[in-house]
Amino acid sequence: MLERSDFLIAAPAGLAARFAAVRAHSARLAAPLSAEDCAVQSMPDASPVKWHLAHTTWFFETFILERFEPSFRAFNEAFRVLYNSYYNAVGDKFPRPERGLLTRPPHHEVLAYRRDVDARMAGLLQRALPPDAWALVELGLQHEQQHQELILTDALHLLSRNPLYPIYDPKAAPEARGGELEWVAFDAGIAQIGHEGAAFCFDNETPRHRQFLEPFELASRLVTNAEYLAFIEDDGYRTPSFWLSEGWALINNHAITQPLYWHRLGDAWHTFGLRGLAPLAPEAPVLHLSYFEANAYATWAGARLPTEFEWEHAAIARPDLPQLFGTAWQWTSSSYAPYPGFRAQEGAIGEYNGKFMVNQYVLRGSSLATPEGHARPTYRNFFPTYARWQFTGVRLAK
Amino acid sequence: MLERSDFLIAAPAGLAARFAAVRAHSARLAAPLSAEDCAVQSMPDASPVKWHLAHTTWFFETFILERFEPSFRAFNEAFRVLYNSYYNAVGDKFPRPERGLLTRPPHHEVLAYRRDVDARMAGLLQRALPPDAWALVELGLQHEQQHQELILTDALHLLSRNPLYPIYDPKAAPEARGGELEWVAFDAGIAQIGHEGAAFCFDNETPRHRQFLEPFELASRLVTNAEYLAFIEDDGYRTPSFWLSEGWALINNHAITQPLYWHRLGDAWHTFGLRGLAPLAPEAPVLHLSYFEANAYATWAGARLPTEFEWEHAAIARPDLPQLFGTAWQWTSSSYAPYPGFRAQEGAIGEYNGKFMVNQYVLRGSSLATPEGHARPTYRNFFPTYARWQFTGVRLAK
Amino acid sequence: MLERSDFLIAAPAGLAARFAAVRAHSARLAAPLSAEDCAVQSMPDASPVKWHLAHTTWFFETFILERFEPSFRAFNEAFRVLYNSYYNAVGDKFPRPERGLLTRPPHHEVLAYRRDVDARMAGLLQRALPPDAWALVELGLQHEQQHQELILTDALHLLSRNPLYPIYDPKAAPEARGGELEWVAFDAGIAQIGHEGAAFCFDNETPRHRQFLEPFELASRLVTNAEYLAFIEDDGYRTPSFWLSEGWALINNHAITQPLYWHRLGDAWHTFGLRGLAPLAPEAPVLHLSYFEANAYATWAGARLPTEFEWEHAAIARPDLPQLFGTAWQWTSSSYAPYPGFRAQEGAIGEYNGKFMVNQYVLRGSSLATPEGHARPTYRNFFPTYARWQFTGVRLAK
Amino acid sequence: MLERSDFLIAAPAGLAARFAAVRAHSARLAAPLSAEDCAVQSMPDASPVKWHLAHTTWFFETFILERFEPSFRAFNEAFRVLYNSYYNAVGDKFPRPERGLLTRPPHHEVLAYRRDVDARMAGLLQRALPPDAWALVELGLQHEQQHQELILTDALHLLSRNPLYPIYDPKAAPEARGGELEWVAFDAGIAQIGHEGAAFCFDNETPRHRQFLEPFELASRLVTNAEYLAFIEDDGYRTPSFWLSEGWALINNHAITQPLYWHRLGDAWHTFGLRGLAPLAPEAPVLHLSYFEANAYATWAGARLPTEFEWEHAAIARPDLPQLFGTAWQWTSSSYAPYPGFRAQEGAIGEYNGKFMVNQYVLRGSSLATPEGHARPTYRNFFPTYARWQFTGVRLAK
Repeated sequence: MLERSDFLIAAPAGLAARFAAVRAHSARLAAPLSAEDCAVQSMPDASPVKWHLAHTTWFFETFILERFEPSFRAFNEAFRVLYNSYYNAVGDKFPRPERGLLTRPPHHEVLAYRRDVDARMAGLLQRALPPDAWALVELGLQHEQQHQELILTDALHLLSRNPLYPIYDPKAAPEARGGELEWVAFDAGIAQIGHEGAAFCFDNETPRHRQFLEPFELASRLVTNAEYLAFIEDDGYRTPSFWLSEGWALINNHAITQPLYWHRLGDAWHTFGLRGLAPLAPEAPVLHLSYFEANAYATWAGARLPTEFEWEHAAIARPDLPQLFGTAWQWTSSSYAPYPGFRAQEGAIGEYNGKFMVNQYVLRGSSLATPEGHARPTYRNFFPTYARWQFTGVRLAK
Repeated sequence: MLERSDFLIAAPAGLAARFAAVRAHSARLAAPLSAEDCAVQSMPDASPVKWHLAHTTWFFETFILERFEPSFRAFNEAFRVLYNSYYNAVGDKFPRPERGLLTRPPHHEVLAYRRDVDARMAGLLQRALPPDAWALVELGLQHEQQHQELILTDALHLLSRNPLYPIYDPKAAPEARGGELEWVAFDAGIAQIGHEGAAFCFDNETPRHRQFLEPFELASRLVTNAEYLAFIEDDGYRTPSFWLSEGWALINNHAITQPLYWHRLGDAWHTFGLRGLAPLAPEAPVLHLSYFEANAYATWAGARLPTEFEWEHAAIARPDLPQLFGTAWQWTSSSYAPYPGFRAQEGAIGEYNGKFMVNQYVLRGSSLATPEGHARPTYRNFFPTYARWQFTGVRLAK
Repeated sequence: MLERSDFLIAAPAGLAARFAAVRAHSARLAAPLSAEDCAVQSMPDASPVKWHLAHTTWFFETFILERFEPSFRAFNEAFRVLYNSYYNAVGDKFPRPERGLLTRPPHHEVLAYRRDVDARMAGLLQRALPPDAWALVELGLQHEQQHQELILTDALHLLSRNPLYPIYDPKAAPEARGGELEWVAFDAGIAQIGHEGAAFCFDNETPRHRQFLEPFELASRLVTNAEYLAFIEDDGYRTPSFWLSEGWALINNHAITQPLYWHRLGDAWHTFGLRGLAPLAPEAPVLHLSYFEANAYATWAGARLPTEFEWEHAAIARPDLPQLFGTAWQWTSSSYAPYPGFRAQEGAIGEYNGKFMVNQYVLRGSSLATPEGHARPTYRNFFPTYARWQFTGVRLAK
Repeated sequence: MLERSDFLIAAPAGLAARFAAVRAHSARLAAPLSAEDCAVQSMPDASPVKWHLAHTTWFFETFILERFEPSFRAFNEAFRVLYNSYYNAVGDKFPRPERGLLTRPPHHEVLAYRRDVDARMAGLLQRALPPDAWALVELGLQHEQQHQELILTDALHLLSRNPLYPIYDPKAAPEARGGELEWVAFDAGIAQIGHEGAAFCFDNETPRHRQFLEPFELASRLVTNAEYLAFIEDDGYRTPSFWLSEGWALINNHAITQPLYWHRLGDAWHTFGLRGLAPLAPEAPVLHLSYFEANAYATWAGARLPTEFEWEHAAIARPDLPQLFGTAWQWTSSSYAPYPGFRAQEGAIGEYNGKFMVNQYVLRGSSLATPEGHARPTYRNFFPTYARWQFTGVRLAK
């Protein structure tokens, strides 16, 4: 556990408003979904939306209210196990693949849980607390924003399994940007990598350290649906030399021949997304690729994926590069590993990032599903190589 | 498809009222459950309650309205695939293990589907139709009654996976009957087995035929929780000689040490059921046993399971035997097989029973979850040997 | 354990010679195979030939020498676990799927083990022993004969996985018998089923008891390759209505489109067998079918599989029926179950048959791989419904 | 395919002798094993020794004889598929998990295959060939040396599954080195990483490039059995905070509580190895750890695993560091990835390394099973994180 400081301070300016805004945004994201939609888990990697709504609330209750609220009482003792995600240090966890079995508590009770915790947090935010407390509130908000993206990716996956092709938001679409792909060159040299300054960052963005970069070039935009279709039509999914060996086995074992949400209806390609089923938009970025698909495409295109260090250096040196943020997470060839000198925090909060640093690959940027203000050039997202249900795309490097 | 007859007749007396009553009972069974409860599938062998409500309706729409209603139009074309269970002849089927992904159509729309089909059926029941039609209506009602039992078994399984131990009906409990177990003797001879007469039966109850029975004895009542507990306490689950080889492997691979819904809380045994969690009732029948557990218990007790022919003969010869019906389905040692001369009907309806006649075992009687009027001495229920989520119990034979 | 009797008798006439002959036959069956061939296990259901050679020897050592030989000492203590098959009462068992890992003891040491036990048994056979002992020797010989068939089926399976199509015996082939299929009719009545008399039988053939048989007809010969090919060419493997539901799932999940050892090379069908690869012989019996394939064929042919009682009754009433024995085991529609009044023997020997009496189906007759003198009309072979690597065929009934 | 050069040269000095020596060493490694030992595959990740002997020979036949031998004829056409490992470009491959089914060709025929190819290669080595050819011969020898290590690791795994604890070589043991562990410090700076010069290296060691290293310290020796035992006794396998999340799941799902070849017999720890079973040697290096175990130990010890760049830099800067080579492969925290500017070769040879560059981790150094002369500071070995059957150990870093 973090040590409680000796002195107390008021909440940083704007934190209470920000707390209210972030929390309200989660509820807004769930609004187009029914209680049924929010209860079901479509695969072990995804969680029910109701679970996301409850778990983010549990985070504030467990790590803040329980420690700083006078005469704390749990909203419901059972929730302490039900909505713990992966914090071994906090106690028992409900098994992840069974989250979709929790039809009780009902949806409205989870909403009541949110309102209760919000009200108590609002009270706490008016008081003076140790500086730790405010840092934890900020961490809780960043955590909730991560789950806001998962609400969308997990809901989309559920809806995608429904033959009725339900629509979540008829206006949702990624930025389309075709035209000539250009290569932006960067010189060799030592780059400073990692977060700097007082603003919030996750522990995995630190310590700031040095990486030597050989000269490289980065694509001016993301790979488009039209470009990816050319790969498919050039027998991309049937040519082993484009693929990593493990990826070749995976696509053959699972009969994968196209991106996750592509559908061939009659003669025409369509994509499923938050706005439902739509004809494939040629200039829109290709989305929902696994690392293996991203890598195979890059090999076919005579290019490669960037390292996360190249990406970060470029994003800082050339912030005018299109589609860095807000369109699609961009696979890098960097496996998720601690930076030199990285130390996980003590206690449960220390389980946030470090223990996942193996057999996953770093994605940089952010997607159309990432909440406003959550992304930054040093941000490190990460997923296993087979993951396809996130808003993942490709920016090429050479 | 059944051939349409040349002449038309009115519905048998009482059929319209019976239709209304059976259909209303399904809705009543679902009433204590939320839309969330009804949407979730807790395992591939179980189906969501919403699916049961829709599929039973689909049966009437597909096999009756579509054939006999003038200017038929489907309530929703998509439902024809979504709610087909296993009739290959009718067309595509939605995959069974994914029934729990169908959060759309929403619960209220399925209820509207029921009301629509009910209204149209009520109209049809006032008309003159070929005799086939009325036979199919009766089959549809019997089919719905089977699903009424599954609504309860599947809902119970879902609730059982919830650590909050939700209650479905505080008054639901099987008949308790302890006291000395007596053996009722039957002489050897040729028994007539199978359905006779004009009343409804399923095809698997025919043709009526002869079976020679050697002399046997049947227990006067079902095995109780207290008796089964003695088996457990005598190392029943740790002694291989009580078990069929496949059963021994199963309980070891799945770490099974007690019936499905038994819980040891502190020092006391409890059972979970429709009324929630309750201390183990010693004189209540032991429930939710697999065939392997039933057989192991019988071996331990120096007895055996009856054959389905012994059971049927006894039930007809001694209808005063306690707990024949309404308490628990009773495992027999008979594998589910066609009677001599059995022929499945032509067409989709012929898929009802025959194609399941392998690697399943016959259960006789009926349970507390079986709707009134659905059981009879010749009725053949059947499940795979590992199944435990049904209301299954044991009556011993010698 | 069987109780040792109070009095001693000499071995029955001819037992010593029979012992020597049966044991020598096992070695002869292994002779065409290399030490490598004998060491490898091609699937969990099959065992290495070396294991069969050792296990049958272990049976005599454990159940006879250890109990009746003065100053018994095990040939090798380790073999007591390594070569126990499934007798829980005897102690630990080496896991079945890992039998193929036992490259030590080497092949020649297992042969030495056989010679040592044979010599000691030869000595014992000259002495007077309790009658039990001689019964156990006979059981051991019958047991060894069962493994002689498995030596052939398991070796064939191993060789079948080798793209070099190795030949075991160029002269081995089942009896071919085409021509018009005739139907032999039998009247209804009470049949006496099960073994009678003093000759050896397995416990599962007893007690002799009565079964009522409705009138039936039995095919005069087995189904031929040509007939089965007609089923395939009539879309037999693509038409669900011919198949039991579980069988339909199985052939689709495993992409099964033909019998286990059929190969389509260019335009011509071939079969693999003990004599290697050969063009399909139209009048030879179709072999290596699962229960599901046998049943689907029968359905397609407008017939059915016989029950084991029909088969036994016919084999006794009409012993001149062709291909009853020595060609192919014949699937029956009877699940493997105890006869009325069946009791397993006490002790380890009692594990021989009874504990397998679930989810398996009875095969009657015998095959080209069955040793001379091992079959009889009351013999009950049994395998799970998916099994295809035995010499299994079809005789139709109506 | 590599282009054939226009001019021809004689083989480099010593290549013919080296060819003979390396090839003879493989046969020597197989000599203590029987034909049975060499035929069996103990798990899908391992291959039979016979397969290694044949596949290394296939490499010379396919990539050298077939291209450079006048009037080439395959020793056996079937071997072209049977002994292709993973070269998609060369044609069909026999499935890896089924290599253990190939009891034919027999062991002696594979030895004859080796002799035949050796004789023909000896002839070729006397001739003038394009420079490519000699490079390929060297690649073939390096490839064979890699398989020499696998012959030992795979044979050890097979023997480890045998309850008789067979001995391969009573004198085989890793170097023991206890005493105080010291930390050797290295300054920050740009390191040159990767192979330089004309000597042989694998493509994955190139291109030579720059990496910035922050200051670090490296342990003076490997972690010992005694130290690892202290980790176990401090509840190392029961404390989630030491483990990566995926590793924690793995050891719990597979009930892993100790290194692969550790056995607790009575009160005493033993290890199984090439010399059979022996009491645990406290100062010997701990061997046969997965990446997860190595990482968990390092976390427990307050240290970490080195990166592959740190290891390489240290091995070049301080070649006097003990146990760099010849004791145990040392897990690094670097995932296996291409160096900047890496390009796989064209054609089948290009499949050697690049397509495995995902979800594996780099090991540096070499082990007691690595053939003499095969290791160097820039060598990159790699295995998936769960692999335990290699001679893998731990050198700590800070």
